[in-house]
Parts: sequence; C-alpha cells; structure tokens
Amino acid sequence: MLRYLTAGESHGRALCVTVEGLPAGLEITAEELQGELARRRLGYGRGPRMRFEADEVTIVGGVRHGRTLGSPVAVLVGNSEWERSDKWHAEMSTAPGRTENPLTLVRPGHADLAGMQKYGFTDARDVLERASARETAARVVAGMLAKKLIGALGVVVGSHVIQLGSARASGAIRPGPDDLDAVDASEVRCVDPEAAEAMIAEIKAKSKVGDSLGGVVEVLVWGAPIGLGSHVHWDRRLDAALAGALMSIQAVKGVEIGDGFTVAGLPGSEAHDALFWDGHTYVRDTTHAGGIEGGISTGGLIVAHVAMKPLATLNRPTLATVDAITKEAGVSFKERTDVTAVPAMGVVAETMTALVLATEALRKFGGDSMAEFERNAHAFAAALADGPLG
Amino acid sequence: MLRYLTAGESHGRALCVTVEGLPAGLEITAEELQGELARRRLGYGRGPRMRFEADEVTIVGGVRHGRTLGSPVAVLVGNSEWERSDKWHAEMSTAPGRTENPLTLVRPGHADLAGMQKYGFTDARDVLERASARETAARVVAGMLAKKLIGALGVVVGSHVIQLGSARASGAIRPGPDDLDAVDASEVRCVDPEAAEAMIAEIKAKSKVGDSLGGVVEVLVWGAPIGLGSHVHWDRRLDAALAGALMSIQAVKGVEIGDGFTVAGLPGSEAHDALFWDGHTYVRDTTHAGGIEGGISTGGLIVAHVAMKPLATLNRPTLATVDAITKEAGVSFKERTDVTAVPAMGVVAETMTALVLATEALRKFGGDSMAEFERNAHAFAAALADGPLG
Amino acid sequence: MLRYLTAGESHGRALCVTVEGLPAGLEITAEELQGELARRRLGYGRGPRMRFEADEVTIVGGVRHGRTLGSPVAVLVGNSEWERSDKWHAEMSTAPGRTENPLTLVRPGHADLAGMQKYGFTDARDVLERASARETAARVVAGMLAKKLIGALGVVVGSHVIQLGSARASGAIRPGPDDLDAVDASEVRCVDPEAAEAMIAEIKAKSKVGDSLGGVVEVLVWGAPIGLGSHVHWDRRLDAALAGALMSIQAVKGVEIGDGFTVAGLPGSEAHDALFWDGHTYVRDTTHAGGIEGGISTGGLIVAHVAMKPLATLNRPTLATVDAITKEAGVSFKERTDVTAVPAMGVVAETMTALVLATEALRKFGGDSMAEFERNAHAFAAALADGPLG
Amino acid sequence: MLRYLTAGESHGRALCVTVEGLPAGLEITAEELQGELARRRLGYGRGPRMRFEADEVTIVGGVRHGRTLGSPVAVLVGNSEWERSDKWHAEMSTAPGRTENPLTLVRPGHADLAGMQKYGFTDARDVLERASARETAARVVAGMLAKKLIGALGVVVGSHVIQLGSARASGAIRPGPDDLDAVDASEVRCVDPEAAEAMIAEIKAKSKVGDSLGGVVEVLVWGAPIGLGSHVHWDRRLDAALAGALMSIQAVKGVEIGDGFTVAGLPGSEAHDALFWDGHTYVRDTTHAGGIEGGISTGGLIVAHVAMKPLATLNRPTLATVDAITKEAGVSFKERTDVTAVPAMGVVAETMTALVLATEALRKFGGDSMAEFERNAHAFAAALADGPLG
Repeated sequence: MLRYLTAGESHGRALCVTVEGLPAGLEITAEELQGELARRRLGYGRGPRMRFEADEVTIVGGVRHGRTLGSPVAVLVGNSEWERSDKWHAEMSTAPGRTENPLTLVRPGHADLAGMQKYGFTDARDVLERASARETAARVVAGMLAKKLIGALGVVVGSHVIQLGSARASGAIRPGPDDLDAVDASEVRCVDPEAAEAMIAEIKAKSKVGDSLGGVVEVLVWGAPIGLGSHVHWDRRLDAALAGALMSIQAVKGVEIGDGFTVAGLPGSEAHDALFWDGHTYVRDTTHAGGIEGGISTGGLIVAHVAMKPLATLNRPTLATVDAITKEAGVSFKERTDVTAVPAMGVVAETMTALVLATEALRKFGGDSMAEFERNAHAFAAALADGPLG
Repeated sequence: MLRYLTAGESHGRALCVTVEGLPAGLEITAEELQGELARRRLGYGRGPRMRFEADEVTIVGGVRHGRTLGSPVAVLVGNSEWERSDKWHAEMSTAPGRTENPLTLVRPGHADLAGMQKYGFTDARDVLERASARETAARVVAGMLAKKLIGALGVVVGSHVIQLGSARASGAIRPGPDDLDAVDASEVRCVDPEAAEAMIAEIKAKSKVGDSLGGVVEVLVWGAPIGLGSHVHWDRRLDAALAGALMSIQAVKGVEIGDGFTVAGLPGSEAHDALFWDGHTYVRDTTHAGGIEGGISTGGLIVAHVAMKPLATLNRPTLATVDAITKEAGVSFKERTDVTAVPAMGVVAETMTALVLATEALRKFGGDSMAEFERNAHAFAAALADGPLG
Repeated sequence: MLRYLTAGESHGRALCVTVEGLPAGLEITAEELQGELARRRLGYGRGPRMRFEADEVTIVGGVRHGRTLGSPVAVLVGNSEWERSDKWHAEMSTAPGRTENPLTLVRPGHADLAGMQKYGFTDARDVLERASARETAARVVAGMLAKKLIGALGVVVGSHVIQLGSARASGAIRPGPDDLDAVDASEVRCVDPEAAEAMIAEIKAKSKVGDSLGGVVEVLVWGAPIGLGSHVHWDRRLDAALAGALMSIQAVKGVEIGDGFTVAGLPGSEAHDALFWDGHTYVRDTTHAGGIEGGISTGGLIVAHVAMKPLATLNRPTLATVDAITKEAGVSFKERTDVTAVPAMGVVAETMTALVLATEALRKFGGDSMAEFERNAHAFAAALADGPLG
Repeated sequence: MLRYLTAGESHGRALCVTVEGLPAGLEITAEELQGELARRRLGYGRGPRMRFEADEVTIVGGVRHGRTLGSPVAVLVGNSEWERSDKWHAEMSTAPGRTENPLTLVRPGHADLAGMQKYGFTDARDVLERASARETAARVVAGMLAKKLIGALGVVVGSHVIQLGSARASGAIRPGPDDLDAVDASEVRCVDPEAAEAMIAEIKAKSKVGDSLGGVVEVLVWGAPIGLGSHVHWDRRLDAALAGALMSIQAVKGVEIGDGFTVAGLPGSEAHDALFWDGHTYVRDTTHAGGIEGGISTGGLIVAHVAMKPLATLNRPTLATVDAITKEAGVSFKERTDVTAVPAMGVVAETMTALVLATEALRKFGGDSMAEFERNAHAFAAALADGPLG
C-alpha cells in the first residue's frame, strides 16, 4: 500500500512530501520532479507568483544513485521566496513569536473562517497558509513517482481542459497519448484550437474586470491494467477512490467518471458500452462508463471530469464578507492576480489519478522491487490471455 | 474512528455488517434498522424483488438492552428468498460443490467481465452476487447507526430526487428537515409535484418498452457542526470523503458538492457565498459551496448531488455483448424489471453521507460514550460562541 | 491488505467475524472452521463451559461452493447456551430493557473497572461480556482462513506449551511440523512428557485450592517465505506486527521473538545466528533471532514466545476488590473453574501469527485469486534462486 | 488519529519526519527537539559517531511562531557528516550513478541478507543505510511532539536501564517522575548505583575484547489518563499497541507489560493487583498488570520492559557469514565501536510509548486545538469523579 503525507505552508520554508510503499529500483531524478512541477505552473492567466516560483527540488531520502531503495522517499520543494523575503521570513518563522498583523477579514470561498473556528485561531493566515493550492506542489512530486511506477506497466496519465468559463471544447476532439505535449503547448491546455481561442478571450475579458474563471478538465488514462479496484467492498471501488482523490484538489466541486451527469439523463439502452470480441481481445467502442465497470478497471480508456470553481480571490472588491473578530462588514480583498488555475489543475488531477492507480496496482500486483512488480503484472496479463477468458 | 465491513451475496443466506468505533450508550433497535431498510425499497418503478424482499434484521452483537456497548455492532439482514428458494439454496450454497449453469454471457455496464478477469472466475455469478446493489442493505444498517449518532448532535440527513430521466425538479423547491416524510410519501421521492408527475410518466413509458432510467439525487444535511473535515491534508477534506463515499454507490457516476459543474461556468464574482453577521451568528444566503469551504463544514446546509446511470439490466435485448468463454456475440439478457432505482439510491446516499459525517464527528469530538461525545461537541460549540470568533 | 472485524458478546447470540481482502478461490468449509474451533477448547484443566460450548459455525457470505469469492467472508459462531438459557436470553437481549442484577463488584485483573470508567457503565457485565476470551473464537475463524491462505505457500503454523505454572519443558525438545498432532494429543499441549506430567500435577494441585495458572507458549512457523515484513518503516517490521498481534490476546503480558529476554543478557559474540552456504541455500544452525532479521523473515524457522498470566477469576476468595458503586470492600467472586487456559491460548497465538503472516504475504505477493497469489510467490522464489543471491 | 512517516538513510543528507494529526496550538521549538535528540546519544560505551553526530534540526512546516498549526509538522534532522564527507556524499548521492564498492559480506543479526533478497539488491548498503538505528532520530522528533501533547494532560514518560549484559538493577529501586534527570545523569541511565557500576565494568570488559552487550529497559508512564485503549477489539488494546511499537525498535526482541514473563509462573492468587478505595479514589498497591487491564489504562503507573539484543556489529571477527554474491565464507566485519546502545534505546522506547499514548488520547478526547483537547480530557476526568463510579 502506498502512503504519503505532505507538509509545509504556502509562504514557509519549503513543502515536504514523504511517500512510503514504493518498490525498490524505480528510477527517479530531481530533474524529472522539477519538470513535472514546471507543468503545474502552466496556463495562460497565471499571476506573477507562478513566474517567480521556481520550485527547488531536493531528494532527502529513499533514493540512492538515482533509484528508489524501497524506503520512504522524502522530497523537499523549497520556497525561494521565503529566503528572499524578509517579510515572509518573519511572518512564517517557526520560532516563538507572534504575528504583527493578523488577518481577520475572512475570504468567502476559502477555508479562512471555518478553519479559524475549527482550530481556534484568531489569524486567518494560520489557516490559509496551508489551505493554499501551493500544497499541490508536494502532491505533484508524489504523483510523478506514481506516474513512473505505473509507467513501467505502460500506463499513461494525461489531461486536457474541456471547459474554461463558458467556453467549451468540442467533445469530438480527444487527445491521444502522443498528443500530450501538444496539450501542454496550448496556453490553456486545450486541444480544440477554436475553443482554446475562446478560452483565452474569456480570460482576457475577465482579467480586465478583475474577475476569475473556473472550468472543467478531462483526465485520461491509457493502458490501465484490467482489474484495478474491486466490486467487493465499497471502499475498494476504483471510481470511489478516484472521486475522493480528485475532489480533494483545492477548489474542485464536481467529479464525473465517464459520462457522469449526462448519462443520468439517458435511457438505459443508450447509456452503456456494448461489448465485442475482435478475435483477439474485448472491444468497447464507447466510453460511457469511463473505463470502470463495477468499480474495476476494464482495461479500456479511463475517463474522468473534474470541475473547478473560479478562484475565490478576485481583483475587484465584490464579495461581501465580515471581519471575524470585529464583525464589521467588508469586502473580500485582492490578493493575487491569477484569473484561472484550471489548466494547472489538470496536472494536479493527473497526479491524484496516478496516485490512485499506483496504489491499486501495488495492491493487486504486490512486489518489493520494480522487477517483481512488473513480473507479477505481466504474468497476470499473460495468464488472462492464455486462460478461458482470453 | 469508525470502521465497518459489509459481507454477503445478493442471493445468499444473509448480508452482514459490522461497525466498529461507535460510542457506548447509543440507543438502537432492530425495528429502527428495519424501518430504514424499508425506505431503501421505496420508489415507483421497482420490480417484484423489492416487494417480496422483507429484510429480516438480527442484531448479533454490540447491543445490550437496546443500547450499544462500545463493542462492534454486528447485524444480519436475512434473505428470506434464500430459505424459500431451493434453486438459490443450491446455487449459493457455501458447501463444496459446483454450479450447474455458469453464467458466461457477461452484461455490459456491470462488474461481470472485469470481475471475472480480475478474480479468475468462469462464472459471472461469482461476481454479480456481490456486485449487486443488494449489498447496500448492509450499508443502510450502518448508515442508520451513523444517523442516530449524529442525530444526537441535532444533525439531520435527507435526500430528494431532482432529476429522473429527462424530467427535472425545479431548483426553487428544496425540502426542509420537516418535509422528509413528504419526500418519502412521493412515489419518486420528489417534492416538486409537477416534476414528480413527469418522472412517473417517464417511468411508465420506459416500462412499456423495457428500458431503464437514471437520475440525480440531492443530499441535504441540516445542522452539521462547524469544523468537520480539514484543509490540512488532502484525505481529511470533508468534500473528498463525501465524494468517495457517494461515488462508491453502485451505478453512481457523478458527484457534485454545492453547485458543482454549474459553478465551473460562472465568473468568480457570482460563484461564492457572501458572508454576513446577523448580530448573533454568521449567515450565508446562498449554498454555492454546499456548506463546505476549504474541506471543512461551515455549519451551513450541506448540499451534494449524486448522478446515477440507468440500470444496465434491461427488459429488452438491445445491448450487444459477448460470451466470455465462447466469444459468441449475444445480447445482454433480461434479469430484473426495475425501471429505475434512483429514489432508493437517495436513501443509500443519505447512508454514505451519514457515515462520513459520523466518522468526522468522532474524529473531532472523540468520546467513548454518547454522554462524552455529546458533552465534547456542546463544549466546542459553547467555546466558539463565547470566544473571539463568536 | 487483510482487514477483519470481530463482534459479539460472550453470552450473546453469536460471535461474528468478517474478513476482507482474501483472494478468490481459497477452499474452505464450515467443518474446517469447526475443527479449528475445537482445538481452541483443548487442554487439561478447562472448566465445564468448554465442554458444552459446541461452536456452531455458519458461513454467511463470501464463499460459494466451498471456495472464497474475493468478497468479504463472514462467519457466525453461534452460542448454543444463549438459545438454551432463559437467563442469558434475557440478560443479553438486544431489545430495549435493563438488567435486573447489575454486577458492580469489579474483578481485578479484568477490564471491569477501567472499562466501566471508559465507557460510562454502571454494570460491569457491559464490559466483561466483550472483554471475555470467548471473543477469540471469532479470531480463530479468521486465523483458519489465514492458515489456509499461507498453507498454499507451504507455510505451517504451530504451537506448544513450554511452561505452565512453574513447570517448564526442556528447551531441547522442539516439535517439527509433523509433530503437531502429537502436541494436540497432549493434555497440556506439551511435547516433553516429563514436563507435561509436572504441568498436570500442578494443575491438579491448584484445582484443589481453587487457584489458577499461567504459562508460556512457543509459536513456530515452518516454511515462511523470505521477505515478509520490512526494515523500511517501523510499522512494517514483521516482529513488531507479531508482537502487537500476540500481545492482543486476552491475559497475555509478554512476547519474545527468538531468544527475547535471554539474548539481552548474552554477549554479542554468542547472540547471533551465524550464516553458512551449503551449496544450495543459506543455512543458519541457530534461531536466536527467531527467523526475523531487520524486521524481515529470513526464510528460517520463526520462533515466538507468548507469556500468559494466570486467570484472574479464581475459585477461592483471595483477591481484594471494591464495589464500583458503593465502594464497599469485597473479594473477587468465583465465576468459572478453568485452572488454566494456556494450552488453548497457543491456538489463538497460532491464529494471530497466521493473520500477520497472511497480511504480509498478501502485501508482498498481491493477487486477487489463489492462482495469482501462488504464482507471484513462486515466481519470487524462483527469481531469487536464479538471481545473483541464489 | 496521529499518522507519521519517517524517511532518510543513515549516511544520507538528512532524516525527515512528518507528523499528521496534531492539534493546533501545541508549543514546540527546534531547541526542544534538539534536546531530546541529544538524550538519544546518551550512554557510556557509545562510539565516536555519537559524539560527532550533532543533529541539526529544521522545522520545515506545520509550525508558526512556535506553535503547531494543525497541519502536518515536518522536521529535518540534518546529517552533518554527509556534507563533510566526500565519501558519503558520493556513496549516498541521489543522482544517477552506481556504487564503487558494493558491500556483499552480509552481517548476521542485521537486515542485510533478508533485505537484499526481498528488494532485489546486490549491495547490502542499499539495505543497511535504512535499517540502521540512525532512523530512530526521526522517531524521537515525533516522540517529542507526542510527549508535549500528552504532557499537557500531566502525563510523564520516562525510562531507565534495569539490565545491561548480566548486570541487573534491584527491582526495589524505581525512579519517580522527579528522578528522570538523575537517570540521564547516570552514564548507563540506571538509578541503582551498584548496578550502574557493574554495568560500566561489564561495558569496559567487553570493549577490551571487542564484544557487545544487550540489556533491558523499563519504561514508566506517570499520570496516564484512565481509559486509553480498549477491550472491544484486538487492535485497540493499549498493551497490543505498546508491544508493537516497542518491538519495532531496532534490535529489540522482547516486550513485557507489567510483570510479563514472571507473572506467567505465579499462581493466580499472587498475580493480580488488589483494588482498594481510599475514600477519594481507587488504589492499587502493586503493578503486576503494568497499569493496563483488559487493554485499557487504569490510571495507575504504566510499566513495560523492553529487551534489546547485543549489537550485531562487533569489533572482533567472530561471527561466521557468507558473501551474498560469491558465497565465500567470511566473518562479519567491524564497523562501529559502540559496545551497547541500551541506555539510548530507553529514549527511543519512551518515544514509541509517547506516540502510542498520544494516538490513543487523541482518539478518546478528540480536539483540533490544544484548548479543545485539554478541555475534553478534563471534562472526562471531572465527569468520572462526579459520577456513580467516582
């Protein structure tokens, strides 16, 4: 079983992630992790932080000579800003002290108020520093390890933006595994050029008026093995695990597997994936079920949709709020200038998907070394092909 | 922490559920469990099984004189059919033997094929007996215990159908906690009378042609305490836990918290819940965020939407499939005659929601007896009201 | 990963155990479970309860035609006494009501007082019904499933009594896997005939004066695969898992792996197992480390010692105590007449050992079917033999 | 629930520990962590590494202005040697590369061979770098956080050496909570001066001949709340959790709760703690059960014994072994010069004990802030005192 814990605050010294349960012999370099972190900063309409936020990756443990040791892998993602900025250095010091300027005008749409209430804080910064999406950088490191792990079985995880604000991509255009560089090359990570243009136009328009935009990302998994997840217990269903993992991403409010809400409105006769045998293997021509039937991966393309609300921090004072201490009414303040984080969220959605698949692949195939893990996975596929069902 | 395991096959002797981690002193009777199980059979368009399926509840352990003992609560939900039917008695015998008529024409949209492949079966019945939604009866027992637990804090969990096939309820009509009996009194568990009529008409129409229908349920939670879930780690977010639990329900393919996919298309200025202070407490007039901000319950109404695909077992032979052994093409066979299970799914969605909230309430408030659990919860609320944020 | 929950009270309707995570295709019958339960009643000096306690086993779910389905296996162990005894039927009723005669003279050495304090009870029976060692019958069912699972890899788990009261078996006599029937044939499950005689004499002596006896069991595992457990994280060490599982047995107060406390007094030069290569495989002639080095099974004989205190319920009133309500001083009352449960505890120690090994074997080898589990295990062994270390 | 993961290799850049689940508002400084780490280096007979091993503590996340934020606390324990030593810098580099001098003469009594076999390594250093007891430094950081947490409830965790080699302390001398500084002031952490002298003499003697020594530590907990752990399920028993945690310490081979193996040889009439009421509270004059009855803390002194084998790395070539690749016979090589690590092991035993108690205290009392955690604990104690049992 894969376990991982992330730690670290947005403007603190560093983020830290520890991943326990990886087999030995997985090749990984700081450069690969850095490369994936750079993908997390992609997207038209990101504010200045994304530009100066060079993620400094340090592998602290669990890797020797470029390969995992089976022991927990710990990675730091340093915060260059923390070192540079006297303000943050003081504000986020771990040494005893107190803040000079507590933040009490809580921001709707953020953890600020509920977090202060839960934890007994009188400074919203004690909440928001951890609630910030900056934390996803630590997840992305874990996700890259997961991608490498399942990549050894030929699994590829990708994503693309299918809606940004009111602009939607054509459902007819779905990238293949070879198109993923093209996705990242798009400023909005959208493979439908017309839709991409409309998305950028919408970002520009909102940028002018200080507003923000949400959207929807489609996650795709090619080459997932048959048999991940299970129907035997509710918490072993692959779709349940995916939904939980994807909904855990900051600002995500909806998750669909396959056709999701759409299929709820269709008659049964049009809602399922017909099954064929092509002489060699089972074939489904549609992806209504998103590659998961009965909570188990079918071996077909896995499809999930992830809906993100628009950022709650706007550049114009429109959102009514309250000072949590004085109770004076106010308006939610301006803090950042990203118009949208949807393209980048896709990378985090890939991360969470890869972590779920890696967890399930390790559960099914076991293995303490990559050789053992891969051998078991291949033996399963071979036995299936040679058996009565193959 | 609450742990629970369900067991049992659809046509087997009984379902079994064990719930570990409940405080002592929770009052529970077999009749209450039976009552909640009866709710799970609600809904126009259910087939004959639902009618003769009288769930016989036996509390096996963990309860003495009508109150929990702190020890694991185990409950059997007997299958009257199993006793009565020689066929099932033989087919689902646990004694050594073999089936006379293996099922190999796998049904698309079910776990059949992927389950056979994963577990190495040559009889789809080895999969479908457990993959069946009959298993949710065991969950509902656990859910009723969870409802009673959080009910002691004044929390009420309800649900209603907001879409069935193409018929949608008006978003303007949302039941309150006092309307839940009225919801159950509706044949389709819908409080919008016009929509309910349209839903029934659609069920009748599909029934005639042997087709099936999906739909969407809205889950509502009144009185949830402030501070369940957390922003501090991805797997502690209340929305993530809810999404995973709701997606684990058989045939569910989409989950939204609050406005979900809708809010992805709105500008930030219209997407968040403005915050006010009414002199006594914080007020939010909208539920865009569904009562959860930063993964933490705000104390407001919790709202989630759950999309269910139409049943994959139709009464007409339309869905192309394959015999898993012979590879002959076929059509998915008729097995049951429910047109839709959406109204009943709402009860299961309440179950999963209650289990998530109970888990999080126990994590926050601790407590080995109901007195201790309630005392801690009330002390938290009182300290909040008396403190700087109250 | 194997998960299991037990439920049920000592004098209640039944015990219940649910085991989640077993591969499909494991052969199991109610008779086998019953047979193992009978072993749990072995031993000279057991009181009448053990004789009339015929454990009625019912497999409720997870098994079809004598083989597991991959779904959770649920088993009931019925309590014939409950049906027969009006007294227990009334006292342990789950229906609302109250006890007629609360037990408040708490027994030292039992959970009585601490349990009442923790859970807020005023009747010690609310504690002791669950704290009773009767619960181990449910574990033994789970343990038998675990034994069958690892038995497929050639692993054999056994136990024998090496100390009972002051009588100790000669360390020179250690049974082999073929001697296990002989162990059970001994009235005290001891293979050293002289020691067995002394043990029985001691039981007889204590029986006369109404006293009780503890003792020590040695658990042995033959054929454990190399590589179970791990050095990489504290909670993955095989010895840690074994110690926790063995210490969880009612009345157990000490656990040793290999030479345990003895080796603490030896110099390092005499405390470790020298390693040799016999041309085909690694050989260790001693078992100081108990077959576990660095938290990992070496492939050699696994050895653990488990110390049980004498039963705290005596047949003579010697133990000073207090009424938990009135605070009146009293003496701990007579309840049962077993002089010792050490021989039977060995069976439970086997159970816990088998469950730990099964958990670790599934973690290492994965597998959803017995065929897959065994294939992976054999492939690991073969790769090891063919590789640079073999 | 408290979760924590450690990472890092013995001669690598740093150790890393992340602790998730601590309430907010716990005061902690790097100096306190450093101080506890210094205690881990205590003890006569430690080799040079202990002297130059100045643990550089960096709090990476989860703490702001000297108080926890409720978010995961991550701490680095830097390895000054790594920076200084070109050899280690190169040998333990995480960048792609390979070792120049693989270690293949595996050391009996270490994880070397089993670890290589499990993970598929051909260099024992890939195992031993993580298997080393250096890892306990990361645990000690987590343990210090746990000590501070339960310290807020008045709980004190201590330890002292009661056996070192063949020298045993008098059972009559047991330190109180005020004697803990005196324990640490003893070169062998033993409060019996005569025994301490004998222990030092034995260390000197073994040092001369290059041999090593094991021993036994007694862990003591004063002020543990009533009601931690539970009788209701095997894996919730406090003694089981303690045994697992203590046995997880490198080189530990035996654990006793209370009188442990000794009590196994006593008659029942002498083996239990008589209970009295002194007019205000329950009193037990003995600690046979070690403060835990039925898996639950009684509120009395908790007592555990932990047996450590002598270090397997000797300064003289006595232990026969084999080269894992060539199969040539050899003798286990000299690597370090500690004669014994028993005094320091006591500090790690305190750590594991504190972590278990903190986990159980959080489970029972809940609480997201220290104020809430303490309030709930105090309310439980007050209700107990005011209730029918008090």
